[in-house]
Amino acid sequence: MKDIIVQPATGKLGILMPGMGAVATTFVAGVLASRKGIAQPTGSLTQTANIRIGKRTENRNPKIKDFVPLANLNDLVFGGWDVYSDSMYDAAVNAGVLERGLIEQVKDELELIKPMKAVFDKRYVKNLDGTNVKTGATKQDLVDALIEDIDNFKIANDCERLVMVWCGSTEIYHEAKEVHASLENFEAGLLNNDPDIAPSMMYAYAALKSNVPFAMGAPNLCLDIPALEELAKITETPIAGKDFKTGQTLMKTIVAPGLRARALGVRGWFSTNILGNRDGLVLDAPENFKTKEVSKGNVLDGILDARINPELYGDIHHKVRIEYYPPLGDNKEGWDNIDIFGWLGYQMQIKINFLCRDSILAAPIVLDLALFMDLAKRSNLSGIQEWLSFYWKAPQTLPELEPIHDIFKQLEKLENTLRYLMGEELITNLGMDYYEDVDAEVEL
Amino acid sequence: MKDIIVQPATGKLGILMPGMGAVATTFVAGVLASRKGIAQPTGSLTQTANIRIGKRTENRNPKIKDFVPLANLNDLVFGGWDVYSDSMYDAAVNAGVLERGLIEQVKDELELIKPMKAVFDKRYVKNLDGTNVKTGATKQDLVDALIEDIDNFKIANDCERLVMVWCGSTEIYHEAKEVHASLENFEAGLLNNDPDIAPSMMYAYAALKSNVPFAMGAPNLCLDIPALEELAKITETPIAGKDFKTGQTLMKTIVAPGLRARALGVRGWFSTNILGNRDGLVLDAPENFKTKEVSKGNVLDGILDARINPELYGDIHHKVRIEYYPPLGDNKEGWDNIDIFGWLGYQMQIKINFLCRDSILAAPIVLDLALFMDLAKRSNLSGIQEWLSFYWKAPQTLPELEPIHDIFKQLEKLENTLRYLMGEELITNLGMDYYEDVDAEVEL
Amino acid sequence: MKDIIVQPATGKLGILMPGMGAVATTFVAGVLASRKGIAQPTGSLTQTANIRIGKRTENRNPKIKDFVPLANLNDLVFGGWDVYSDSMYDAAVNAGVLERGLIEQVKDELELIKPMKAVFDKRYVKNLDGTNVKTGATKQDLVDALIEDIDNFKIANDCERLVMVWCGSTEIYHEAKEVHASLENFEAGLLNNDPDIAPSMMYAYAALKSNVPFAMGAPNLCLDIPALEELAKITETPIAGKDFKTGQTLMKTIVAPGLRARALGVRGWFSTNILGNRDGLVLDAPENFKTKEVSKGNVLDGILDARINPELYGDIHHKVRIEYYPPLGDNKEGWDNIDIFGWLGYQMQIKINFLCRDSILAAPIVLDLALFMDLAKRSNLSGIQEWLSFYWKAPQTLPELEPIHDIFKQLEKLENTLRYLMGEELITNLGMDYYEDVDAEVEL
Amino acid sequence: MKDIIVQPATGKLGILMPGMGAVATTFVAGVLASRKGIAQPTGSLTQTANIRIGKRTENRNPKIKDFVPLANLNDLVFGGWDVYSDSMYDAAVNAGVLERGLIEQVKDELELIKPMKAVFDKRYVKNLDGTNVKTGATKQDLVDALIEDIDNFKIANDCERLVMVWCGSTEIYHEAKEVHASLENFEAGLLNNDPDIAPSMMYAYAALKSNVPFAMGAPNLCLDIPALEELAKITETPIAGKDFKTGQTLMKTIVAPGLRARALGVRGWFSTNILGNRDGLVLDAPENFKTKEVSKGNVLDGILDARINPELYGDIHHKVRIEYYPPLGDNKEGWDNIDIFGWLGYQMQIKINFLCRDSILAAPIVLDLALFMDLAKRSNLSGIQEWLSFYWKAPQTLPELEPIHDIFKQLEKLENTLRYLMGEELITNLGMDYYEDVDAEVEL
Repeated sequence: MKDIIVQPATGKLGILMPGMGAVATTFVAGVLASRKGIAQPTGSLTQTANIRIGKRTENRNPKIKDFVPLANLNDLVFGGWDVYSDSMYDAAVNAGVLERGLIEQVKDELELIKPMKAVFDKRYVKNLDGTNVKTGATKQDLVDALIEDIDNFKIANDCERLVMVWCGSTEIYHEAKEVHASLENFEAGLLNNDPDIAPSMMYAYAALKSNVPFAMGAPNLCLDIPALEELAKITETPIAGKDFKTGQTLMKTIVAPGLRARALGVRGWFSTNILGNRDGLVLDAPENFKTKEVSKGNVLDGILDARINPELYGDIHHKVRIEYYPPLGDNKEGWDNIDIFGWLGYQMQIKINFLCRDSILAAPIVLDLALFMDLAKRSNLSGIQEWLSFYWKAPQTLPELEPIHDIFKQLEKLENTLRYLMGEELITNLGMDYYEDVDAEVEL
Repeated sequence: MKDIIVQPATGKLGILMPGMGAVATTFVAGVLASRKGIAQPTGSLTQTANIRIGKRTENRNPKIKDFVPLANLNDLVFGGWDVYSDSMYDAAVNAGVLERGLIEQVKDELELIKPMKAVFDKRYVKNLDGTNVKTGATKQDLVDALIEDIDNFKIANDCERLVMVWCGSTEIYHEAKEVHASLENFEAGLLNNDPDIAPSMMYAYAALKSNVPFAMGAPNLCLDIPALEELAKITETPIAGKDFKTGQTLMKTIVAPGLRARALGVRGWFSTNILGNRDGLVLDAPENFKTKEVSKGNVLDGILDARINPELYGDIHHKVRIEYYPPLGDNKEGWDNIDIFGWLGYQMQIKINFLCRDSILAAPIVLDLALFMDLAKRSNLSGIQEWLSFYWKAPQTLPELEPIHDIFKQLEKLENTLRYLMGEELITNLGMDYYEDVDAEVEL
Repeated sequence: MKDIIVQPATGKLGILMPGMGAVATTFVAGVLASRKGIAQPTGSLTQTANIRIGKRTENRNPKIKDFVPLANLNDLVFGGWDVYSDSMYDAAVNAGVLERGLIEQVKDELELIKPMKAVFDKRYVKNLDGTNVKTGATKQDLVDALIEDIDNFKIANDCERLVMVWCGSTEIYHEAKEVHASLENFEAGLLNNDPDIAPSMMYAYAALKSNVPFAMGAPNLCLDIPALEELAKITETPIAGKDFKTGQTLMKTIVAPGLRARALGVRGWFSTNILGNRDGLVLDAPENFKTKEVSKGNVLDGILDARINPELYGDIHHKVRIEYYPPLGDNKEGWDNIDIFGWLGYQMQIKINFLCRDSILAAPIVLDLALFMDLAKRSNLSGIQEWLSFYWKAPQTLPELEPIHDIFKQLEKLENTLRYLMGEELITNLGMDYYEDVDAEVEL
Repeated sequence: MKDIIVQPATGKLGILMPGMGAVATTFVAGVLASRKGIAQPTGSLTQTANIRIGKRTENRNPKIKDFVPLANLNDLVFGGWDVYSDSMYDAAVNAGVLERGLIEQVKDELELIKPMKAVFDKRYVKNLDGTNVKTGATKQDLVDALIEDIDNFKIANDCERLVMVWCGSTEIYHEAKEVHASLENFEAGLLNNDPDIAPSMMYAYAALKSNVPFAMGAPNLCLDIPALEELAKITETPIAGKDFKTGQTLMKTIVAPGLRARALGVRGWFSTNILGNRDGLVLDAPENFKTKEVSKGNVLDGILDARINPELYGDIHHKVRIEYYPPLGDNKEGWDNIDIFGWLGYQMQIKINFLCRDSILAAPIVLDLALFMDLAKRSNLSGIQEWLSFYWKAPQTLPELEPIHDIFKQLEKLENTLRYLMGEELITNLGMDYYEDVDAEVEL
């Protein structure tokens, strides 16, 4: 194995978020509450999950945060941008995700966090408006302003390192064009205001130029363009995306591998989603919904591979619907109907109703990504972080690789990466050594 | 690695089944139909699943049956015992699982398969009766008769090898006693008619004495007693159990690992099952239900481990109900309500309604176990086959090991065992070699 | 009470159906099978339901068919029109609703029923095509051809009376215009090929001109235009519509009255429907879906009346989705999520998953409507038959009345109408006479 | 019609509740909050429902409370008995039904309501204990103490009238015996401490002796014994019972009439209930569960009558399960699987998941019963109040009558009784007068 040197996590880590609505406020309020011992950061692998090390019989299952050197919750500082100028306290109250009683207990700290002026373009988010926005003659000017924001934030908050996690809205669907094909084209586009450069790309560009790792929480076309992959490589900055895996897609990447495991065939998978928050409102615009639809749509194909097993997965009717339904508020419900077939083609059905909460599922992902992206940076892992596929609806990979969607393979990849970084043996679950007289070093 | 020599699968393989009801007939009729090309053996890993070999970019995904040397479907011969004397044709019609049209197409072969007289004890199965039963002064006499049946079957059908898979009923709940504690005690018990020697134990004993691998499809106390583990070791015969993992427990071992993967907490898991076949009738007797309840109950504890993570899994209310509900016939429905909690303790729910078919899910397991147990025998793997945990509600392991219930770890164990047997690299899903300049031989 | 004279149901009754697909063939095959005693016409009130007569303590609960004089199943003759020229036997096989075994038993009779050439206009049904269609210079010519078909059918089949029940597709959404405003305008429009005269209107016009009662099974704008209401009055012919109440809307008109009964508030009702048959295909075209959407949408408003009770029903988010999902075939599934509130505004939810069968639910409605429309005609009830509201998603009423959607009020209306026709006391469920010394004649 | 004189509702009405736990405190806190305008008494017919008067076209839909003279919420006074001595404030907090914020706003009034010492017998409620209990040498002594409590309460609170509504636990299952067969036997039993006289019977006896109407909210054998029916008649006191219809049974009496309306057959109805409050704990004792099971079991038989329609309802597998599942707290979930069949016997399924709240559904029933029982008393309606069947799982009727379970017939009975009391025309939903020239006085 290669010798990996992981730098320690000293000093403060600043977490910058473009988009400071329900997800961002739930994340920040939760970290603050956890620091005070008021609540637990459940759902965060970095804080609450354990990892098995060594043989089963050794019973070594440290918490991940005790196994790899991660920034401590007490060392985190928060900032970001939003089209509304509300403080994080007001934004948290408006979001309606957390109980008022909890918010009040971290009010003082939340009130101090005010969004910087955002880069915004209504053509990219049809159903939103906002006034807390930057102006500039060119997109280059906007990018420069973002870079300045980043610098100022770092100094003002005495941060040793920064990471940026997109917590903003889904932009409209558009496909990669010439302007995205190389860093050179992209930078020319910034100067001549190319309309195909989306706001999210400007944030990512500003981050990478500043050596700040960037993670893309929405399904936006952003990091996954050659221009920004090139920039990440040049600046040796970790990037990862895209689209936080929460709710229905999370469930899908849990259940589909189970069906495949048992070689059960699938004839159809109908998924409907009802949700009532701002995310639902944004997705009510068809152009924005399409971005999400494409992101969600590939998940099944990756797990139930028709090329490898056409008899079982060659004819799946997969339909995904998202419906804006205000009575649910920040709650979200998925209803899945899965038509499967088994022995001799006999048909069966699975119906799953997931009564979940959008921001509650997303917040710990923001935390984990921030800490793991920072770990990657300190471990000198640069560019695309495929080992973080676990968190994405549409994981970014090298062009020659296909993304892994199976959440259990994603988890194994993540855990074995951590073991690899720390010089521990990888786990294969073979376990033949318990039963046979074999080389115990290799098989675990 | 140890040098493993896998003997080829030549000649006929006889599959003997104690219990020739719905599961056994669905299995046999299905294999016959598959041989004729009328239907597909979907749900069977040995027949329809692929296994990845080598790096992702090599695109090597052979079918399992093309990767390891397994007995061919055309070389299988079927036999068994039942308390009813119906031929497999009549039993298949009575079971009501398969459409009449399908059964008729394999009628000729099914009619020829007539159950041998069973070893039966009504105290162990309260709600069944039957007349096609052996009599004998002692349990030793009954065992001798079974051994004779086995020998006769092998000769009459010109089999090179045999395996035995229990497809019979759930026996009443009882715990291991002195008579089960050693082979010596057990053999004494056979002679003096110890009431704690259950019929299923007599089948297993007869099989192991005849060097025939034995798999226990019901949750019966049987292979998991020291006496029979000892006998398996002495005769170098593979054993595996217990309780086919179908329906609700299958779903549970798919979903629970997903919750654990995301570090989501679990407060409660309520499972109810409604089913209308003979299995349901047998389980309607409380003594028999308890056996099943215990078998199903440990599944969650194994995956959501309160010892390792008490904050998330220290207080789970897990309740399992099985209800005999005749309108469903051989269909079966599970309804699960799962109460989970995430970030800051916020609660969410998952509800799963699985409209499944008992025997349709069990039949491919019988096939896989028969073929894999035979493979184990030919590979000189003797005793407990933990790598087949994938198929069991309550996997049997060495006393010092805890069973693995997570179906994805079970599958990895199974697949890596196959790779190991064939001398291929194990898969760890690390994949660092694609991104870094590391030793490609080890990390995949 | 008025003296009603109900003429007896002598001779043959011809049932003519525009549209001979899944619904029509399921209906006809079912009547034929019922006549032979092979199967039961379950779900048909006229054949299987009982009606209480007199006081509870009298225990008089005759079958409806024994209480009012209805045409006997043996006296029914079937015919119709379709854009495909398949016989009803072929159409039934293609529809895939009924098991082949059942169809074969009535094959001889089904094969004899061949559709007459249809009046068809692809602009009104986007996703269908067909060649078995009439041609004519003007719409008047097409109507004349239909009238001739009706006459010929009556003579050829020796029918004493006829009724017509639309079993065809949903036409595109359009609103009533000048051409529909009077019979005079309409007849002018027939001559000058007014594009707003839909095919379904031509069938209805032809029927009413021929004194044949007409019922509209789809949500088409047809009988509910002044022109045809006028014609029905002039020719004293019963009309009723529209849109067979099956599946999800049926469930809605059962559950909503229950919520209203208990004064429970409703915040939202999200309904999704997945179906895989030709009906689903037709509704996959947005113009056709809109017709169905409007028909389904008013149901809740009629039951949960915001004008009468704005606190409970003033802000209901009601959303209906229909999705074409081929794996289901003729099966259909509704999933409803209902957000309700009770005491002090506390919220609760009801989730209903209805695994139903489209044509199986529609077929008995066709039968009942045919027999009841014929009863209406023989009872001299002409024009709009509001008492048949029970069968419709969008019941037709006098312009000054609002439709009743509550299925239990609809049933009471239907039953009390039958009692009224037969001179029996109406039932009020008061029952005070059992407990008090009151006038037993009035209160039941 | 008989001339009914309804006395006006002047002065204060005292509502006495044996059992002051979750239901009683939710009821009282809700009335107090409603009086202050903090919340709405949704789900209460007396407060929020409208009733149609006259012809549809008259648009007369007054609120029920504006149509019949009912006690005003401001005139209600509350008291009762409990085995725990907590004030209603403490009990409400412990119950965990209402949000703390709401309870605090009515704290002052709740704190003043302290339970009187209860008549309690642990043999009748296995899983409860309590110390705030009366002692006495004989059951007659206990009854005398209750009567004294009633008198004292009336005077102390300056009440003009009283009603009593049982809000206590389910007692064990027992059947009527000799001691219950007549008032004479019963009174002898009180003196000689007959073990078959349950605590709930003593409360009912004390109420009726004091001319206080009594309603039985639990499924206890109590009012439905000849002794107490006799006493009600003698004292001309209204009685009504039993077992508040909430949750799953409510849903059942909504859906079953809908299936019957459409003449759909039923093969099975499997109902499971999970709940986590004290009610669930009490029902976890098999003897107590049986009482509830019997009460719930008859509901379907009454609606889907096998005697009248054996083809459709002659073979229903009806199974009801109640499971104590602490994670739900006062929330309650019902899951129903209904196996139905339609045209030609084709099978379909309905699955209903009701996420409800026990006390939230029960509280408005307590209010309505208190007000309607008081109305009955003032209207001189004595003995069994069948018109209140609407509120009960097991409605009490005259011995020669069968209870009506169909909630829509129950509602019509209730509404027509109110119309009858106020001298308005009964509604029959005939409506023939709109279409025909008929006598408009009779048909509405």
